[in-house]
Amino acid sequence: MSNSSKENYSDDFEVTPWNVEGPVDYARLIKKFGTQEITNEILKKIESFTGELHPLLANKFFFSHRDLDWILNKYESNEKFYLYTGRGPSGMVHLGHLMPWFLTKHLQDKFDSNLLFQITDDEKFLYGNSTMDEIKKNVNENILDIIAIGFKKSRTKIIVNSRHIKHLYSNSLEIAKRITFSTAKSIFGFTNSTNIGMIGFPPLQGVPCFLPSIIEGKPTPVLIPAAIDQDPYWRLTRDIAEKMGFYKPAQIHSKFLPSLQTIGKMSSSKPETALFTTDTPKLIEEKISNAFTGGQPTISLQKKLGANPAICSVFSYLKYLFDTPVESNERELKCRSGNLLCGECKHDLSNHSTTFISMFQERREKAKDLVSDFMYSEDS
Amino acid sequence: MSNSSKENYSDDFEVTPWNVEGPVDYARLIKKFGTQEITNEILKKIESFTGELHPLLANKFFFSHRDLDWILNKYESNEKFYLYTGRGPSGMVHLGHLMPWFLTKHLQDKFDSNLLFQITDDEKFLYGNSTMDEIKKNVNENILDIIAIGFKKSRTKIIVNSRHIKHLYSNSLEIAKRITFSTAKSIFGFTNSTNIGMIGFPPLQGVPCFLPSIIEGKPTPVLIPAAIDQDPYWRLTRDIAEKMGFYKPAQIHSKFLPSLQTIGKMSSSKPETALFTTDTPKLIEEKISNAFTGGQPTISLQKKLGANPAICSVFSYLKYLFDTPVESNERELKCRSGNLLCGECKHDLSNHSTTFISMFQERREKAKDLVSDFMYSEDS
Repeated sequence: MSNSSKENYSDDFEVTPWNVEGPVDYARLIKKFGTQEITNEILKKIESFTGELHPLLANKFFFSHRDLDWILNKYESNEKFYLYTGRGPSGMVHLGHLMPWFLTKHLQDKFDSNLLFQITDDEKFLYGNSTMDEIKKNVNENILDIIAIGFKKSRTKIIVNSRHIKHLYSNSLEIAKRITFSTAKSIFGFTNSTNIGMIGFPPLQGVPCFLPSIIEGKPTPVLIPAAIDQDPYWRLTRDIAEKMGFYKPAQIHSKFLPSLQTIGKMSSSKPETALFTTDTPKLIEEKISNAFTGGQPTISLQKKLGANPAICSVFSYLKYLFDTPVESNERELKCRSGNLLCGECKHDLSNHSTTFISMFQERREKAKDLVSDFMYSEDS
Repeated sequence: MSNSSKENYSDDFEVTPWNVEGPVDYARLIKKFGTQEITNEILKKIESFTGELHPLLANKFFFSHRDLDWILNKYESNEKFYLYTGRGPSGMVHLGHLMPWFLTKHLQDKFDSNLLFQITDDEKFLYGNSTMDEIKKNVNENILDIIAIGFKKSRTKIIVNSRHIKHLYSNSLEIAKRITFSTAKSIFGFTNSTNIGMIGFPPLQGVPCFLPSIIEGKPTPVLIPAAIDQDPYWRLTRDIAEKMGFYKPAQIHSKFLPSLQTIGKMSSSKPETALFTTDTPKLIEEKISNAFTGGQPTISLQKKLGANPAICSVFSYLKYLFDTPVESNERELKCRSGNLLCGECKHDLSNHSTTFISMFQERREKAKDLVSDFMYSEDS
């Protein structure tokens, strides 16, 4: 499936909801997907509501959107929006997964939004080699991560597709009836060898775009913070939203946190490429010590020529997760000029990561008592 | 969709799960679908269990099968089978719909079988122009017809897809994952303009083939009595059954009760072509009086040349629903020889139909108190 849509992109990277490969050119992706860049004007508008700009907005980790300006105008005229994000439970959660959730929590706090959090266990079963039992275990683990983010209990509902299918099904049918195979094929690159479950699935990921309007009994704006690879799912619902009497869902898209090992995004299926929320401090240190950097082969060469932070996974982790913009700029200058060795950056990242993950693990433990409070309904 | 698969059949008739058109050549259909003719040997074997041969078997209204011999052998060696049949709630129920249910009830009585009765409200929404609300009304009406057939309460469970989707969904995913678009396309004739709900739907109609094995905790034979147009759905599950650790579902296929108006099967969407279980006696008489027969333009011509029962809807109704085989043979001879006028046959059919439907309507009324007893589970 992933290969089939390759022709839509360049030869050196690929972004689909199921596969991200190669060095992603985000500016080109905006053009390919037909989304908008997040301008400084929009950032200023957000800041006018939130009082401060979230680091993931300030450092442009969130870089693209659809109708973000529109939804801010709606908010300004007293139409509150729902947030909607999700998780495909293909394995344990790593830091890359958390990043859109950090922004989602920030937006929930600042805009006092209700949040629907969809877990697409069905999709992950249909795409991939895991059994439903394996995926169910992932779901239960992933729910702890979601709760550990700190979303407001009273304003957050987690939907697990296979558990809550009865609540989703009728709306899913309404969406499915309006989408031809031709449209779905052109968006997702389905081929003859795609299983029919995958072809039938996209409407289910569309349902939470419209569920807020159904819950509220009136058209209700929805903002989806997510990594940009998931955009095709909601592009599909945008095309039919107005015909169904709903608003088009607005979106705010993040980049991918790179792999620790090579170029590309982190991956649950390759554990050495990512820092998981359940990793031990020792494992975190090991992974970071083996991480791919932009450094020179020897210390003396690095001191002489400087290194390349643009391709360095350690630099990216520090920039997007732990450094302030000022700290990150300073780190970049020192790195390029040969005044910073990779070992120091790895040391910084290890310290930050072990501290963060150990704190997160405590919250994950506490989350175990809160699961039922966060579930969409009681029929799980 | 219906046109797309036309190339698989001859030019003068078409049989798909959603459309039956033209004069069906059943012998050719057996070859096209790759099913088996029900031989006299099989009929004798059935008779050895049931003591008498059901009229719909004796008169070859049920004419085709898959693995019927196998399931009888299983029964002989003490492996009991489940029955599974269904209803697509596109409208009210007519006599043509009842006929597979009559045989199903007979088999339930004689073989003491459990029965799963699936109502595919989702399919009828995805294919066609009805709203979900209209279809829900049909579902409630159709359930009364099903119960009025007289199935055993303790051995019968009605499944309504949208109500019971949570019980069906995981198994549906297991089926869906094993079927490529290529396979589904070749069986159902899906095209670029097919909506993705229709493409994703077939696994749901497959679930009750395997549900008995899941309920019983061991591979359990299933026999599906149904009109032959539904065969493609189960052909699909037969291909993957053994890989999933189940038996292939066996089937016994009926012909279609013809339209009262022209050649072709009765249709819920053309009320004048069918006798509905909710029709008044007056309406039944009207429809029959306008029915298409094999008669001559004038009485004198008919007395001279005789008529043609082979193309006569009234003759078919009498043969398959009300005449004994002996009566039907006699009627045929008299008709061909000019000793029977169409008015007499219409009179006979009116009498039989109004009597039957009035009795059925009484049972339909009583069924209203039994609905919850027949539902698959309480979460409706």
